[in-house]
Formats: sequence, structure tokens, C-alpha cells
Amino acid sequence: RNHRIAVVPGDGIGPEVIDASLEVLAAAETAFGFGTELTRVEAGARHYLRTGELWTPELEEQLRGHDAVLFGAMGDPAVQPGVLERGFILAMRKAFQQAVNLRPVKLYEGVATPIAGLTPERCDLVIVRENTEGAYVGRGSTVHAGTPYAVAVQESVNTRPGIERVVDYSFRLAQQRRKKLTLCHKKNILVEAGNLWQDTVDEVGRRYPDVEVDYVHVDAMCFHLPVAPERFDVVVTDNLFGDIITDLGAVIQGGLGVAASANLNLDGSAPSMFEAIHGSAPDIAGRGWANPVGAVLSTAMCLASLGEREAALAIEAAAVHVLAGLPQLSGPGMGMDTAGVGKEIASLVGAGLP
Amino acid sequence: RNHRIAVVPGDGIGPEVIDASLEVLAAAETAFGFGTELTRVEAGARHYLRTGELWTPELEEQLRGHDAVLFGAMGDPAVQPGVLERGFILAMRKAFQQAVNLRPVKLYEGVATPIAGLTPERCDLVIVRENTEGAYVGRGSTVHAGTPYAVAVQESVNTRPGIERVVDYSFRLAQQRRKKLTLCHKKNILVEAGNLWQDTVDEVGRRYPDVEVDYVHVDAMCFHLPVAPERFDVVVTDNLFGDIITDLGAVIQGGLGVAASANLNLDGSAPSMFEAIHGSAPDIAGRGWANPVGAVLSTAMCLASLGEREAALAIEAAAVHVLAGLPQLSGPGMGMDTAGVGKEIASLVGAGLP
Ligand SMILES: CC(C)[C@H](C(=O)O)[C@@H](O)C(=O)O
Ligand SMILES: CC(C)[C@H](C(=O)O)[C@@H](O)C(=O)O
Repeated sequence: RNHRIAVVPGDGIGPEVIDASLEVLAAAETAFGFGTELTRVEAGARHYLRTGELWTPELEEQLRGHDAVLFGAMGDPAVQPGVLERGFILAMRKAFQQAVNLRPVKLYEGVATPIAGLTPERCDLVIVRENTEGAYVGRGSTVHAGTPYAVAVQESVNTRPGIERVVDYSFRLAQQRRKKLTLCHKKNILVEAGNLWQDTVDEVGRRYPDVEVDYVHVDAMCFHLPVAPERFDVVVTDNLFGDIITDLGAVIQGGLGVAASANLNLDGSAPSMFEAIHGSAPDIAGRGWANPVGAVLSTAMCLASLGEREAALAIEAAAVHVLAGLPQLSGPGMGMDTAGVGKEIASLVGAGLP
Repeated sequence: RNHRIAVVPGDGIGPEVIDASLEVLAAAETAFGFGTELTRVEAGARHYLRTGELWTPELEEQLRGHDAVLFGAMGDPAVQPGVLERGFILAMRKAFQQAVNLRPVKLYEGVATPIAGLTPERCDLVIVRENTEGAYVGRGSTVHAGTPYAVAVQESVNTRPGIERVVDYSFRLAQQRRKKLTLCHKKNILVEAGNLWQDTVDEVGRRYPDVEVDYVHVDAMCFHLPVAPERFDVVVTDNLFGDIITDLGAVIQGGLGVAASANLNLDGSAPSMFEAIHGSAPDIAGRGWANPVGAVLSTAMCLASLGEREAALAIEAAAVHVLAGLPQLSGPGMGMDTAGVGKEIASLVGAGLP
């Protein structure tokens, strides 16, 4: 087995956490007998500031030739807000039809959660966020802009095929887990979109009679998720609500440093993309203070998607073990630097399960 | 001073918490020398199930003749989801142009918050939610409904006057507080609406040079609000984001039982409406298990809006004092029943500040 992986370290702490992840990846290759062909690709805020290039046809073609994309982080205070988001991240999600944004919300042993009394057994769910449509389609217009009677209209476009693919994915995921799927929306207010989501869940659900289906409004979700995460197994939601509740999920599991994500292409037409949830954190870049575990766990998700399930599980187990030993999750109090954490996870992976 | 207040107890625990609030109100009248004329109005889920009536022109006219509306709770499992929300609550907000939905997020002494280590000093902010437009305008349509290629489009309509009035209100509120205003939106993605919000904040802000202005994306808000509420003083946001983050605010302050809200008409054309955040909780109705403090604090907000600031402060102080003495926030472990809590707050209000 040989996997062609494009590596985009990006900006800020991106290169550091990616380097740590690649160390772990190398150890997994040796231990589990697979190979990778890595292509380092320059992209992101600094690249944009230097070249003016965001998501170009050339980059798209280059990345498309790979089985997966490993992503560090993107962003720089010198770039206008929104430019990289729309010009690169959304462009990639769309070009590669990365229909699902997958966000496990798992509290690991030894990680300090801000939620009083929350234990790892009670916090193990996955949020499946629709990743290509809804309010993210970029449709909006302003009439009488700049006047006292300006009106801005913003559209959310929701298609049955777009919803169906993530809903079907969610049911299959739930089948492999605790067999419970919760739709999160605001269907009492966003009636048209909400009904289409609910109808799709109802209809697709007939093919998965062993999965229990539930519905929770997005506002109520913010109320329940922090205090009763055990109520949820797989949560499926639209693009905007997913953006919001996944950040809440990250709080619960102890912060952005630990949180991993996947942007999954489901039809094999293009590579999926894997990245930690954290941003580029330019203020601490280059100091070795960043926790690479979010990136390492994203690498594990990448391997799982490439069929290397054993390696993925070993990396997750090793990362969780090392994480539990860190006195602090990031910063100078972490006990070792970013590279050190990577090395320790790598050596556990190399030595077999911890 | 005589205030004409319409009282809508509604369903479930609504009548109980309203009764407790009226006991407190009566004590405040005596202690602070003002009068009220109360009209009890039947409306809500049970009324709808009996009569088929939701928001009628007659009800609108009746309520309009009052200085304020005190609201219990609305909802019953026998009513289709969305019917009361759209048919009554949104109808009232619109008919009475209740432009601002005001939600204080305040952690009171002695109240158990699920956020580890959070203290009352660190948690005292107010969320100002736009209450009449945005995604709540009810504009949407579905093409090819019921087919595999159905498309649902949902619109958010944002007007400069609609935004300006809540932004201006927010600046004035911030001036009376810690002089910090945070706009919460998702302007990197919802560009048209986000720009109109940001432009309005920037322009209105010139009239309030003493107020510091900040911006936080709604997803980041979910990340920061639970762990660093001290970063916020007044948060202004749109209707949908406000719906979401105010529920998160309620979690932080220890739950729905304690949370109060106001739906403010700002131009004097119609009454404002005051209600606890909690729902009708039909499962515990009639048992005296509901905590009336959310309703009592809403009554205090009502009095403040009617110019009875001293009475409002006294009620808040008394409620907070009684709250701190409750072994549990609701249920059989509360130590006394709903009416008992009301009586105790009332007697403190009657006796002067605790
Ligand atoms: C960077 C931005 C476009 C993005 C989003 O809004 O989807 C981010 O917040 C995320 O959750 O991946
Ligand atoms: C009942 C419903 C219409 C309402 C809303 O969505 O605004 C509620 O959730 C609220 O926050 O007041």
C-alpha cells in the first residue's frame, strides 16, 4: 500500500504541528508496513502575500493528483479577514466536493475540560457538518448600500442531493457507533430548509431501521451539548449550524489544540482534506508551544480514510497516552515542545500500542 | 405612578411562575409606592387547542392598550412544533416592533454554573439580539419539493434601520455599563449581511466615542463565551445568532430557571414583553418544582423599563439573595416550592433591601 499525500503546512504554527505529524506518520509506516509519497505544497497567507495566489487551477490540479491532503493552518494578521476563508478554504471544499466536515468531540483521559464534572465516558460524539452549501454558498446582495435604507439579503441554498449525501454518511457512521442520529436545525423558524432536512433524514432513515433518530433545535443544542454530551452519538447539521456547534464541541473536549477534523470527499472524485481545528496562532508561532495532537489526530483520520485503520487506531491511542501526561495542553508549561510531543507519540507508535 | 400590565400566564409552569412574580410585584408596589392595573389574558397552547386562536387582531388590540406584557411560558406537546412560535411569538414581536431581545447573562452568587472555576465577578454581560428580521423574516421557498432534486432556499433580510436601532440601543447600554460593545456575526462568510452590520456599528459608534468596539465571529463566540465571559460587556448580534448564543449564555449562568429576558419596543408604539427564558416544562407543571426567579427577574426588567428602577433593583437583590439560599435550583430538592420562593422574595422586597 502506497498513499500519495499532499502536505500543506501553511502559516504560523501550521509547519510545526505538521512536522510533528509527519514524524508520527513515518513511525506508523514502519510499524504497519505501508508507504507514503509526500508532496510539500506552499499555500496560505504568507504565500498569498508574496505571490497574490490563493486557490489556483494549477494548485487544484496538483492536489487532485493525491489521495489526501494534510493541512496545517492558514492565516496571517496582514491578510484581510475573509480573503483566505472564501478564496482558499471554501474554494477547496467546493472544488473537491468535500461534502462532509467531520468533527469528533471526544474528551480524552487527562485532558482538562472547562465543564465541571464531565468525564471521558460521557463525552464521545461526532458532528457531521454539511460542508458545501447552505448559508455558505456566497449568495447575497445589498440594495441601497451605504444609505440609511440599505437592505442586505443573504441566501441559504439547500439541495436534496447535498443534504442526502451527508445524511446517508451520518447514518452509516451511526451504525458503526452507538446507533443514534440527531438532526440539529432550527426547523420551527427556517421552515423550508428545516423541512427538507427533516424529510431527508426521515426518508434515508428508512434504510437504517436500526438507528434511532432524534431532533434538537440548534439553540437547544447549545444548551444541552455542554452539560449532557452523552445524549449524542452522531449529530448531523447544516453548514452554518455545524460551524457554530463544532466550536462549542471543541470547548467541551478541552480546547482547539486537541480537536481534529476531516473534510471528506465521499465520491472518490477528489482528495479529502485533514486538519486540526486550531488556527495559525501567529502569536506563538516558532516557539514550540503549540500542541500537535489536533494535527496528529487529523493525520490518524487521514490514514483511516485511506484504509489504514490499524495505524489510525495506534496513532490515536499513542496520542491520547502522551496527552494524558502533559501538565498543560500548550505553551511553555506543556513540559516538552511541539516536536517533543510528536517524537514521543511517534516512538509509542513505533513500539506498538502503549 | 400607575402601570397597566397585561399578564399572560400561558401554559405548563407559566401560571405558577407568574403567580410567584405577581406576589413579588405586589410587595414592590407597597414598598415603592406605585400602582399597577393587571389584566389577565388567556393565550397560548391550551387556549389554541380549545379555540383555534393564536395571535388575533382582538388580542393585539387588547394588549396594545397596556404599558407592558408579562409573559409566563407557552407550549404543549399536543401543538405542532412551530405553530406557536411563528403564530404567536414571532407575530407579537413583529406587531409590537419589539426590536430588541435583551438577555442578561449574569452568574449570581450561590448559583451552580457548569463551567469549572467560573465566578460571578467574571460573568456579567448582556446580549442584545435583533428581534424582528434576519433569518426570522419567514422568507423561503422550495422548488421540486418531494423530489430527489428538491431545493430549499431560505432568506435572511437585514435592513439598515432594523440594525441601526438595536446597535444604537446597544451603544447606549454599553455607556451605562463597562463601555465595551462586541459585534457578533459571521462576516467572513455572510458577507453582505455582515458588512451591513459592521458598517452600522462603525458609523453609529462615532456617536459613542467612549465605547470600545470589538468583533467576534459567532463560532469563536461559542468558543470564548463559556471560558472567558469576562471578555464581554454588551454583545450585539443578529436574530439567529442571538437565538443560539443566548442559550449558551443561559447554560453559563446556571440554567434556564434563572435566566430573564425582555422583548423591547424602542419607539413607544406598543408594549414591551418580559418573560423567563425557560419553556412551559409540561412534565413538571403543577408540582411547585419550577424556579420562579427567571420570571421574577423578568418582572424586575419590566419595572425598570417602566421607570421603576429602585423597585427593579430591590427585586433583583431579593431574588439573588433567596436564590443563593436554595440547595437546588429546581425540583423537589429546591427546599421550598415555586410559591414559597415567590413569597420569600416578596417579603424581602417588602422589608427593604436584604
Ligand atoms: C475558516 C472558516 C471559513 C471556517 C468556516 O467557517 O467553515 C472555519 O470557521 C471552520 O469551522 O472550518
Ligand atoms: C420560541 C422561539 C420562536 C424562540 C426563538 O427562536 O426566537 C425562542 O427560541 C427564543 O429564543 O425566544
